[in-house]
Amino acid sequence: MIIVLKPSTEPEQIQHIVEMIEKVGLRTHISAGELQTIIGVIGDKTKLANYPIASISCVESVVHVSKPYKLASRDFHPDDTIIDVNGAKIGGGNLWVIAGPCSIESEDQMRTVAKFVKEAGANLLRGGAYKPRTSPYSFQGMGEEGLKILQKIGKEFGMPTVTEVMDTADVELVAKYADVIQIGTRNAQNFALLKQVGKTKRPVVLKRGMAQTIEEWLMSAEYVMSEGNLDVILCERGIRTFENAYRNTLDVLAIPVLKERTHLPVIIDPSHASGVWQYVIPMALAGIVSGADGVMVEAHHDPEKAMSDGAQSLKPKKFNLLMSELRKIAPVVGKGKNLS
Amino acid sequence: MIIVLKPSTEPEQIQHIVEMIEKVGLRTHISAGELQTIIGVIGDKTKLANYPIASISCVESVVHVSKPYKLASRDFHPDDTIIDVNGAKIGGGNLWVIAGPCSIESEDQMRTVAKFVKEAGANLLRGGAYKPRTSPYSFQGMGEEGLKILQKIGKEFGMPTVTEVMDTADVELVAKYADVIQIGTRNAQNFALLKQVGKTKRPVVLKRGMAQTIEEWLMSAEYVMSEGNLDVILCERGIRTFENAYRNTLDVLAIPVLKERTHLPVIIDPSHASGVWQYVIPMALAGIVSGADGVMVEAHHDPEKAMSDGAQSLKPKKFNLLMSELRKIAPVVGKGKNLS
Amino acid sequence: MIIVLKPSTEPEQIQHIVEMIEKVGLRTHISAGELQTIIGVIGDKTKLANYPIASISCVESVVHVSKPYKLASRDFHPDDTIIDVNGAKIGGGNLWVIAGPCSIESEDQMRTVAKFVKEAGANLLRGGAYKPRTSPYSFQGMGEEGLKILQKIGKEFGMPTVTEVMDTADVELVAKYADVIQIGTRNAQNFALLKQVGKTKRPVVLKRGMAQTIEEWLMSAEYVMSEGNLDVILCERGIRTFENAYRNTLDVLAIPVLKERTHLPVIIDPSHASGVWQYVIPMALAGIVSGADGVMVEAHHDPEKAMSDGAQSLKPKKFNLLMSELRKIAPVVGKGKNLS
Amino acid sequence: MIIVLKPSTEPEQIQHIVEMIEKVGLRTHISAGELQTIIGVIGDKTKLANYPIASISCVESVVHVSKPYKLASRDFHPDDTIIDVNGAKIGGGNLWVIAGPCSIESEDQMRTVAKFVKEAGANLLRGGAYKPRTSPYSFQGMGEEGLKILQKIGKEFGMPTVTEVMDTADVELVAKYADVIQIGTRNAQNFALLKQVGKTKRPVVLKRGMAQTIEEWLMSAEYVMSEGNLDVILCERGIRTFENAYRNTLDVLAIPVLKERTHLPVIIDPSHASGVWQYVIPMALAGIVSGADGVMVEAHHDPEKAMSDGAQSLKPKKFNLLMSELRKIAPVVGKGKNLS
Repeated sequence: MIIVLKPSTEPEQIQHIVEMIEKVGLRTHISAGELQTIIGVIGDKTKLANYPIASISCVESVVHVSKPYKLASRDFHPDDTIIDVNGAKIGGGNLWVIAGPCSIESEDQMRTVAKFVKEAGANLLRGGAYKPRTSPYSFQGMGEEGLKILQKIGKEFGMPTVTEVMDTADVELVAKYADVIQIGTRNAQNFALLKQVGKTKRPVVLKRGMAQTIEEWLMSAEYVMSEGNLDVILCERGIRTFENAYRNTLDVLAIPVLKERTHLPVIIDPSHASGVWQYVIPMALAGIVSGADGVMVEAHHDPEKAMSDGAQSLKPKKFNLLMSELRKIAPVVGKGKNLS
Repeated sequence: MIIVLKPSTEPEQIQHIVEMIEKVGLRTHISAGELQTIIGVIGDKTKLANYPIASISCVESVVHVSKPYKLASRDFHPDDTIIDVNGAKIGGGNLWVIAGPCSIESEDQMRTVAKFVKEAGANLLRGGAYKPRTSPYSFQGMGEEGLKILQKIGKEFGMPTVTEVMDTADVELVAKYADVIQIGTRNAQNFALLKQVGKTKRPVVLKRGMAQTIEEWLMSAEYVMSEGNLDVILCERGIRTFENAYRNTLDVLAIPVLKERTHLPVIIDPSHASGVWQYVIPMALAGIVSGADGVMVEAHHDPEKAMSDGAQSLKPKKFNLLMSELRKIAPVVGKGKNLS
Repeated sequence: MIIVLKPSTEPEQIQHIVEMIEKVGLRTHISAGELQTIIGVIGDKTKLANYPIASISCVESVVHVSKPYKLASRDFHPDDTIIDVNGAKIGGGNLWVIAGPCSIESEDQMRTVAKFVKEAGANLLRGGAYKPRTSPYSFQGMGEEGLKILQKIGKEFGMPTVTEVMDTADVELVAKYADVIQIGTRNAQNFALLKQVGKTKRPVVLKRGMAQTIEEWLMSAEYVMSEGNLDVILCERGIRTFENAYRNTLDVLAIPVLKERTHLPVIIDPSHASGVWQYVIPMALAGIVSGADGVMVEAHHDPEKAMSDGAQSLKPKKFNLLMSELRKIAPVVGKGKNLS
Repeated sequence: MIIVLKPSTEPEQIQHIVEMIEKVGLRTHISAGELQTIIGVIGDKTKLANYPIASISCVESVVHVSKPYKLASRDFHPDDTIIDVNGAKIGGGNLWVIAGPCSIESEDQMRTVAKFVKEAGANLLRGGAYKPRTSPYSFQGMGEEGLKILQKIGKEFGMPTVTEVMDTADVELVAKYADVIQIGTRNAQNFALLKQVGKTKRPVVLKRGMAQTIEEWLMSAEYVMSEGNLDVILCERGIRTFENAYRNTLDVLAIPVLKERTHLPVIIDPSHASGVWQYVIPMALAGIVSGADGVMVEAHHDPEKAMSDGAQSLKPKKFNLLMSELRKIAPVVGKGKNLS
């Protein structure tokens, strides 16, 4: 940690700060520039976590040199983390292709979707039983009944399942039925929920918050890991920007940055960013060539007969197209050896 | 709702969409432009909430005309909502000045702070017992013990209390000890939590999400209100932008926009946006002249003796200065008649 | 400047960097932490301007301690700059109220507007002769003819004039007719134009770029000042964010930040951010209580008779209301002694 | 165009607006909802360009249905534009690989770089003679002397050249020496400059503004095209967001959006967004699989001997690696048949 002092700082003010830092057991290193003095702080900075150094009047800024996350950092864990859920591996060149509908609606619906995504090559099944809807008047999900359907269909097709949890009160229930737990973008800094899923044994797909920096995202992973659950999969799903031609700006550049900073697997969700089918395939490919270890794609039925004539019947075809492109692209960047 | 179709849309595709809409009991109105056709939809659009009209291949965009929030909307409740908590009124020209430390640390600390903020004119006392910290290694708050201290000191000084809740499991406990419940920026779309506080009888200070649009924010208020709790106070605390000279961009323009769209009281938190003391007073004033019904300000002690010589002794002075400026500015915009 | 090295950096790599820095005449200061080494650089860093230190493979990051702007910095010029244009002063408690239409349309239009804004208390007259329009098919302004009208009406009412220049080729012409030159948000980093207006003797109103950081904005001011023209007035007009309830997010928090970092006057343009009349007055007041030295407001006629019945006749009233509120608010923060 | 009226609008206000619209020769279509009325406007909306409809007090919002750009729109030009500069084709499956240093420093430097990028397979040579630097104290480029060097080396290696212009006064000179003219991100809405390059016969690489929406970007292209120069190549280079782990957020999702809306070629600049070499290759690949028609990459020398030992000697190797990956990835998405 480097403390940059304001030009006018007096020697006794510097002394005060140095004493405070050394009292908690850290060492300091003073460097006087022509205009400004800086204090380097050496040792375990968590000892200073509750000292508001930036708010001291003579301090201009505080620069953090070492990273605030430890368990998630590649510095202390150079090799990629590989996670294996009932044979579906992610990391080390293995890809996860997670597919399924946005919401679980019925056993029939789940079976139909599972069948075609499994045949096309998906290795995990997703479906929402608890839905984070912007409006309280929208369908909020089937709850436990949905979880049971998901589990049943997952077993039927030999696919591990992924589903979202939104409330600490539901974590135990979700962990009972699902193989992988998802934390959505709106709960990316719901620290109570992060701690709770950290107490389960289920791998956690952690979506990035809509306006979360990469460092904050890794700190959210650290919340889960610090409770003992080390199997966190980071899921880039787009960030919020000024652009309104689509729903979110898919941040593929975050992927190589993450790959450098953390050993955790990274996947991409091209569906929520793009919002429209035409953009999903190119964005999935962009994620993979950027270094992602998997994709999470919505493969949903249209709820309305009249419309499904056009749109729905095409959907399995589009999913097949995605899988065939993935199988061609992934090997170029050394990935996907596990795709059937 | 207006559905804009792509230039190439065929008559039978238009017919399909019209039939689907009319089947759920809504009326349509077709308007053929030179290049593109638009379909106006008339009636209660919540009936279409689960129909993914925007994903139909011939649909270019969907424009929502009527607002998705009802209970929060001024259209259906033209008069300002006035909330009275043990005599501390907000709305209708009355201001709330909520002050106190970031975290509750001890009874002594709370008493010292409460004393000086009360004397200066604050009418509510804040203090955090559950702290949303970016790092799992930082102090997470005193929990129930902190709630007890806050309640005790609040009663001692005759100040209603405000404190944050982060977990659905803690809502009942917090509602038992505190007079007003706060939802923090990271939980602004934690829908499970919003519903839970909606079931209490306590007024809710709802902070805006870091990247939440005004409309989404009002939808979060709607979540609370739809459970029966109509006493929501919206708190602007800064949004996340590219600027890094301060922590968050305080969106004062949101205040007149809110005042037009909703009858709910609006307050401003100048502390979290600015990050430094020098900016807090001008930002508090900016909020009030923009139309806010109150301010929430951190008045914290420095934890370290050596430093408090300089910084801490000034803090009550600064808070006095804030109050004296508020008393001069507020009447110009017709506010603050209740400030002692 | 502080150079933070990656954990794995070898001693000979550190030596290389140190030698490179010392060769251009700067001093270094090495501080070895537990995990990472940092190099402090002491002396005039502009000597390193063309050395891509951040791109050296063992460098993790480069932190700039001293500010890159000099002429604009308050460090070297502690007192507020006061600019006087034909008696209209800005800075040191004096306010500029610049008012007028968006575009100059005719002599009659300018005279009508100038009359009512002057009577209400505006001290400078604005009007656009060159218009930056998003579409090439929109009206691009009257050009030199418009400049002549502006000059004539300005003299008639004893009001200094402000107008925008968009092309280096027009700078001389604009400087001939107008008293103050404006640089628009889209040209905030048009460095050729900044240099050109820096060669004139006219004060320059420099609008902030839509996505310009405060530091970059001060560097744009530095471009003008480095050519010899020290009379720069910074104009906050809103930044681009995700929010779409209005046009731009007015960054009033930028004002106290600027006041701390620079001695230059700062004004606020509430019209372009809010986009609608109802929001202009509260935003103008918010700017003033935040520390701004003036406002720039659009006072335009509606071009269409039928509409002007309602809207237009109200506009002088609204401008009068703005001025009366300003006269009440400004003295509270020690400003506006020069407002008639 | 759709005009959404406020709930309280009176019939005579509606009549006023309708009359105004019909007077300029457009047709209207009124649709009365339960709460709000909307007016559809049919015909050429440029006739309304100077009518501030959104500012009429009873208007809630104005929704534009048809796109404001015409020449750039795929609606009126369904086939991809193919541009051929001395045999280097872009569009229709052909890729441009533009490579070279950030700044032109000397003939030797340009020859060295041109040699290795040409051998690796680049088909155009870039180099800056006029540099947009944030600081006026940084090197501003060699000017005409640099242009001469670029032209000479381009001819020597049979590579068409690309260079940036920043001032309308330099357009003629740049067009004389260079084969392709570049407009930088800071001048993306410098409308005077866009018009001026629109008058030349040189293809224009138009970088996206840092905070420019896709629609505004296409309007900037329209500025160039409306002057008669139809050869515009759009270059995505990253947008400004809250993330600070890299310089800019590369918006690859913009590529399929552009491909749908416009017939113009699109390229990607991975260097300016990522800022570091490790990220350039994955981002270039992500651009290509997203549908881009080329890449623009910086291949620069380190200016300092001591450092070049490590970094510089690797750079041709890294560029070779980029080219070899491109040759493997591009054919999968049907591109790059022209790469040697």
